[in-house]
Amino acid sequence: MDYAKYSLATYRLYDDKADFDKKALGIAVGLTVGSWTELPEAARAQMQQHLGQVVSVDVHEGEASQRYADITIAYPDVNFSRDIPALLVTAFGKLSMDGKIKLIDLQPSADFLSAFPGPKFGLHGVRDLLGVHNRPLVMSIFKSVIGHDLAGLREQFLQQALGGVDLIKDDEILFENPLTPLEARVEACMDAAREAEQTTGQKLLYFTNLTGSTFQLKANAKRAIAAGANGLLFNVLAYGFDALAELASDPDINVPIAAHPSLAGAIYPSQYHGMSAALLLGKLMRIAGADLSLFPSPYGSVVMPKAENLAVKEALLTPSLPQAAAFPVPSAGIHPGLVPLILQDFGPDVVVNAGGGVHGHPLGAAAGGRAFRQAVDAVKQGVSLEEHGKQHEELRIAIERWGVRTS
Amino acid sequence: MDYAKYSLATYRLYDDKADFDKKALGIAVGLTVGSWTELPEAARAQMQQHLGQVVSVDVHEGEASQRYADITIAYPDVNFSRDIPALLVTAFGKLSMDGKIKLIDLQPSADFLSAFPGPKFGLHGVRDLLGVHNRPLVMSIFKSVIGHDLAGLREQFLQQALGGVDLIKDDEILFENPLTPLEARVEACMDAAREAEQTTGQKLLYFTNLTGSTFQLKANAKRAIAAGANGLLFNVLAYGFDALAELASDPDINVPIAAHPSLAGAIYPSQYHGMSAALLLGKLMRIAGADLSLFPSPYGSVVMPKAENLAVKEALLTPSLPQAAAFPVPSAGIHPGLVPLILQDFGPDVVVNAGGGVHGHPLGAAAGGRAFRQAVDAVKQGVSLEEHGKQHEELRIAIERWGVRTS
Repeated sequence: MDYAKYSLATYRLYDDKADFDKKALGIAVGLTVGSWTELPEAARAQMQQHLGQVVSVDVHEGEASQRYADITIAYPDVNFSRDIPALLVTAFGKLSMDGKIKLIDLQPSADFLSAFPGPKFGLHGVRDLLGVHNRPLVMSIFKSVIGHDLAGLREQFLQQALGGVDLIKDDEILFENPLTPLEARVEACMDAAREAEQTTGQKLLYFTNLTGSTFQLKANAKRAIAAGANGLLFNVLAYGFDALAELASDPDINVPIAAHPSLAGAIYPSQYHGMSAALLLGKLMRIAGADLSLFPSPYGSVVMPKAENLAVKEALLTPSLPQAAAFPVPSAGIHPGLVPLILQDFGPDVVVNAGGGVHGHPLGAAAGGRAFRQAVDAVKQGVSLEEHGKQHEELRIAIERWGVRTS
Repeated sequence: MDYAKYSLATYRLYDDKADFDKKALGIAVGLTVGSWTELPEAARAQMQQHLGQVVSVDVHEGEASQRYADITIAYPDVNFSRDIPALLVTAFGKLSMDGKIKLIDLQPSADFLSAFPGPKFGLHGVRDLLGVHNRPLVMSIFKSVIGHDLAGLREQFLQQALGGVDLIKDDEILFENPLTPLEARVEACMDAAREAEQTTGQKLLYFTNLTGSTFQLKANAKRAIAAGANGLLFNVLAYGFDALAELASDPDINVPIAAHPSLAGAIYPSQYHGMSAALLLGKLMRIAGADLSLFPSPYGSVVMPKAENLAVKEALLTPSLPQAAAFPVPSAGIHPGLVPLILQDFGPDVVVNAGGGVHGHPLGAAAGGRAFRQAVDAVKQGVSLEEHGKQHEELRIAIERWGVRTS
């Protein structure tokens, strides 16, 4: 059968005794036309194009509690509108509540995907903005932001920027507040960016946290941009993928958007429920238009297994989607001694993102940023961090502080 | 300590060996000011009002994999804006990804809650609209909608309405489509409602499915209302709680909103991750302004344990929130023989909601609706369904078809 006009969903269903073929048929019919066998012949002819199809059922027998099937169902595109809420509600709305079932993947049709311009910049566009094409990027996160005034925030920003990082992002928990309101914050930080540029000679993107009420998001984004913001951080899952898609496709929001995985841990970690990280933080973020997607690294305290990490990366980079590739940003627990491992796992198209690994440097945040840049240089030059550290004090001290991890 | 200016979050954390007190302190500091012990004295004085507080840590020792603690943290209101995304991102954004942790409850401060007008009608307002104050309501769901044209949909609506149900809702998977576009669908169904009213003499609310892109939701809602819709169904979790809050607080969207639990199964069922059903489908739906909240009943094929069901109900009804109480709508697998049990479990302020239990009636959907109304009457009169069925053919036949379940 030709599934060109269908969007496919793959589920993993755990059940110790279910007839998975029957279950699959129940999904295909129940989530589309509702009933089939009882329909009169004439009605069937009319309904055929709306009927879901069972693409495959792969049963994995095993101990009772670990018996599962991977089931792929094809949903006719004609049944739903070209937006992510419609796709998700169709494929996993009611079904999400039907036992031990996890949505592993979605393969939207070419027609569905054509409705999504995707990342406005993508990883290549972000590289173009920075003029950096030959190495991984380095991103730094504020150490702490709540309770700080503009002068304090500006100084933190400046120190990070002086270290030569490419990207600085707001903390995702920094909301509109009297101490550092959106536009004043952007102006202060971009001013610090310009100051740092005179020393470092390099460009920098500042991802301001985009917050507030849903229907004010576009206006807030445009306010931030008018104040000089050249990037936006967005807690996508708190607002839904469609909000991201609409922000990303707005021609006036002409800066890259970094998707924060906030709340994702409510959805991806369970074996039996939710959605896979690759779908949630990879494919859907990219389709919806994230230029960068942050997710928990496999190295730090907030952990995602490495196989899942690499699946997220693959979803962000694979050429099989029409949308531009998005930068993977494995986050949490990153220090300079991890850089060789990160580049080994993720390749050159990755953002090395650190908070404590920058600010915790014994010589301060600027030295922390430099240590990361030096670590990246070392890997590029095929030199060990220890060796490179002999000529580069910041890297040497970072290694003394955090060590080097090779696996 | 006085937590009046704090919003509280309670988590259940599983860990076989963690020092839960230390963990709690890490959350309270890490998700607010970032660091504390290393701050100079002067900075502490300034930061004190922004610092999270550990309210309680209740450790439940047990077998390794089942060792857990319920931890309550107080987050200063001054740290976040008065919207649900800000509250969720603060309390569970990054933390959701930090091991086996489930968000059990949120207790927003009075000040935070005061920003939410909540349900515009609530359960009493919905009763007022219908003029029905002395019995549970009965809601009916279309049997199937995809692929049907306006005439087909109207006829389905009419049959349901003739059975005397109080509420009819769209299927949540009915999106904007050429066969039954929003306004034409509303007009056809409301026309059928008026036709039925001439027979039944009773009012009826029709909850049209509100879909489309996020930033068009208000316009779509107003189009539906202009066409005559007197209710809206909304897949809240596909768009985020804030979208609901803004729809509910818009004075021009002056019809009740029924929240569909679509996608909730990705979040509430896991023991170790996500959020409790009572928070997700109860408290947050009510604060955001749902007049009715649907959730999987403990009786049907799509199951939620009864204790969780009753916790959802409690969150929707409790007088401890300033927002109007919202109607609990336990759904899936409901037939007339379950009505005594539903009313026993939920009390009189409940919506008895059925799809198959209406349409599958051997005498058709109108008879199905009547059977439900007769079952409600029987309970009200303190008569058994079997006894009442002797005088009421539709109920008798429903009982023959589905039986009576008493526990």
